Amino acid sequence: MRAVVINCTLKPSPRESSTQALAQVVMRALMERDVEVSEIRAVDLDIKPGVQTDMGGGDEWPRVHDMLLNAEILVIATPTWVGRPSSIAQRVIERMDAMISETDGEGRPVAYNRVAGVLVTGNEDGAHHVISELAGQLGDIGYTIPGQAWTYWHLGPGPGPNYVDTDQGREWSHKTGRAMAANLVAVAEALAARPMGEPPE
Amino acid sequence: MRAVVINCTLKPSPRESSTQALAQVVMRALMERDVEVSEIRAVDLDIKPGVQTDMGGGDEWPRVHDMLLNAEILVIATPTWVGRPSSIAQRVIERMDAMISETDGEGRPVAYNRVAGVLVTGNEDGAHHVISELAGQLGDIGYTIPGQAWTYWHLGPGPGPNYVDTDQGREWSHKTGRAMAANLVAVAEALAARPMGEPPE
Amino acid sequence: MRAVVINCTLKPSPRESSTQALAQVVMRALMERDVEVSEIRAVDLDIKPGVQTDMGGGDEWPRVHDMLLNAEILVIATPTWVGRPSSIAQRVIERMDAMISETDGEGRPVAYNRVAGVLVTGNEDGAHHVISELAGQLGDIGYTIPGQAWTYWHLGPGPGPNYVDTDQGREWSHKTGRAMAANLVAVAEALAARPMGEPPE
Amino acid sequence: MRAVVINCTLKPSPRESSTQALAQVVMRALMERDVEVSEIRAVDLDIKPGVQTDMGGGDEWPRVHDMLLNAEILVIATPTWVGRPSSIAQRVIERMDAMISETDGEGRPVAYNRVAGVLVTGNEDGAHHVISELAGQLGDIGYTIPGQAWTYWHLGPGPGPNYVDTDQGREWSHKTGRAMAANLVAVAEALAARPMGEPPE
Repeated sequence: MRAVVINCTLKPSPRESSTQALAQVVMRALMERDVEVSEIRAVDLDIKPGVQTDMGGGDEWPRVHDMLLNAEILVIATPTWVGRPSSIAQRVIERMDAMISETDGEGRPVAYNRVAGVLVTGNEDGAHHVISELAGQLGDIGYTIPGQAWTYWHLGPGPGPNYVDTDQGREWSHKTGRAMAANLVAVAEALAARPMGEPPE
Repeated sequence: MRAVVINCTLKPSPRESSTQALAQVVMRALMERDVEVSEIRAVDLDIKPGVQTDMGGGDEWPRVHDMLLNAEILVIATPTWVGRPSSIAQRVIERMDAMISETDGEGRPVAYNRVAGVLVTGNEDGAHHVISELAGQLGDIGYTIPGQAWTYWHLGPGPGPNYVDTDQGREWSHKTGRAMAANLVAVAEALAARPMGEPPE
Repeated sequence: MRAVVINCTLKPSPRESSTQALAQVVMRALMERDVEVSEIRAVDLDIKPGVQTDMGGGDEWPRVHDMLLNAEILVIATPTWVGRPSSIAQRVIERMDAMISETDGEGRPVAYNRVAGVLVTGNEDGAHHVISELAGQLGDIGYTIPGQAWTYWHLGPGPGPNYVDTDQGREWSHKTGRAMAANLVAVAEALAARPMGEPPE
Repeated sequence: MRAVVINCTLKPSPRESSTQALAQVVMRALMERDVEVSEIRAVDLDIKPGVQTDMGGGDEWPRVHDMLLNAEILVIATPTWVGRPSSIAQRVIERMDAMISETDGEGRPVAYNRVAGVLVTGNEDGAHHVISELAGQLGDIGYTIPGQAWTYWHLGPGPGPNYVDTDQGREWSHKTGRAMAANLVAVAEALAARPMGEPPE
């Protein structure tokens, strides 16, 4: 079983990313369940604006697209900016829009029988909304969202530290992240054993 | 396999409900797949405000709660009012909040291994947001949301007719509703055959 | 200048309400600016489901409606439940839907030249989303939303205490609440001095 | 009085943009009210990811930032992609995040006494949500959102044509857009005549 984790931080490598730091917890939990995990920091790639699978001109999305079609599990990991998913996360979703009309050999949208979860960090409130926005979009595209397939971290109220700046609250976020990994794997396995079929006319 | 469809219209019976009319399409598609379907019009019941399973004083939620625990599939069907799920839909979700901490005999949140979908009607824009809000909340509670487990109907732009007033656009909404039913049943069956386990510590 | 504060807690009087406790800070700041403040705990009233100004059968909304038309300032104060405004808040907004088509003596929607703000408490993340949802709905109805006309309180990450249970984080929420009151009054006064006109054809 | 309209289409110039086509209606209505209007197609600029006013390395945001500080009115015009504001719109908002802590000569956040509105096109449902998300973010930054300062266009249900492909529904969107322009100007003038003051301690 394979997973792709897309880190949607605004910070290019090698800058420290709170989102990446929390994502490590989920990646480790996936690996402990024998999942092969690939990580992408999307801001490091030249992902062109648009809604087709290959926008040309050096567009690096097609490689990510291939990785998605090769993985049963997807995790979108994003910071919260002004209460919403990062512009990088929305760019990733826009490029996945083309997957709605791509079908596999049996006429099913390519995202069917794949599962997705969401992980959020921030220096302020907004996580549940970010999770809901991204999970809603991934469900539109055809991913199944397992129950409780998310985790997040931020303190409140008002602006506060970043995840990498303090240990406060980590225990809850990590435990929730381990449950997220378990739920992603469990539902991915169930769908692998007994897949969804082609949508009816 | 059993399904509960909760119609969250603001209109008490026997008033005509567009939401109910569109929900019929999904209910029929579920029944054709041998699912036993129960329908509730929540506004007809005395569902008290609060976040516990029994708020007392004639509260009729406990009966709905029992139906949910007896069904593998849940459909929340709601109108759009000022761009959001109806107050009745939010009341239903608030009462389901207690299910987050209720566990089954094996230590799993009671919503695990159940699936949910969302159906929306309106006289204006707002459906994808309503779907995302409700699916996000149901995922928090522990329901798995199958890929493309929703349908909706409204015309645009600006205020327009209700679903029951015109045939326009119905074909798309019905086809999408039949896919919704197929996807709910497929994922519910996959989880019945190979259930999610207890969340890890 | 008059303000109406609608507390959308799920708890009937005289139960303690965190939302009411935080709202007091804003009410006091409004009164210090010579605003006459009325407070409503909506759950104590029989506000019928529906989208007309008077739903009959003992409906207590018409009285609230009259208070709104008599006030330049509106504050919706709500708890966060499963990441969203309470069912009571959505009920209030649904009943305000009728105001979209009510006009004053000069052909303007009745909410024009009135301002609104939002206040949120919770035991978990969700406040900015709740603020955005309610402010968006109030803007649809015709209220002007002054810059930074909101405050909130909750701790994070994960479920935590209620506002009334701890002093943590209060200073930021109160300061933000005082700014909210100042901004509501400033914009209400600007619109009173130089009102918006009738919408063009 | 000056206005900046930021078109957040994913399509670089000179490709045809539905968002731009609808924005023209609002721009014309602003100009008829003697507002000097500047238009930016953000995708044509190299706006770096980040949350500071100047991210260096050829970042073209600082020029936009200066235009914003020189204008009393801002219109964000965006397409809907997978139900949300475009990645370009979110990028713009992220770069405006720095304005929260920038103050004018009198200690006020720089967005105070400026007004903003939102315009949305799409080939499917999502407009009210996009409006609410962007208006909520702009309000956080300090912009005042006049009542009914938005317009949108799309047909429904399901995927449909773009605005530039059909005349259907335009009349409503244009009339609503003219009201948007009138309301933006009216509230901007009221705030110019009687400005909001410095936030209290």
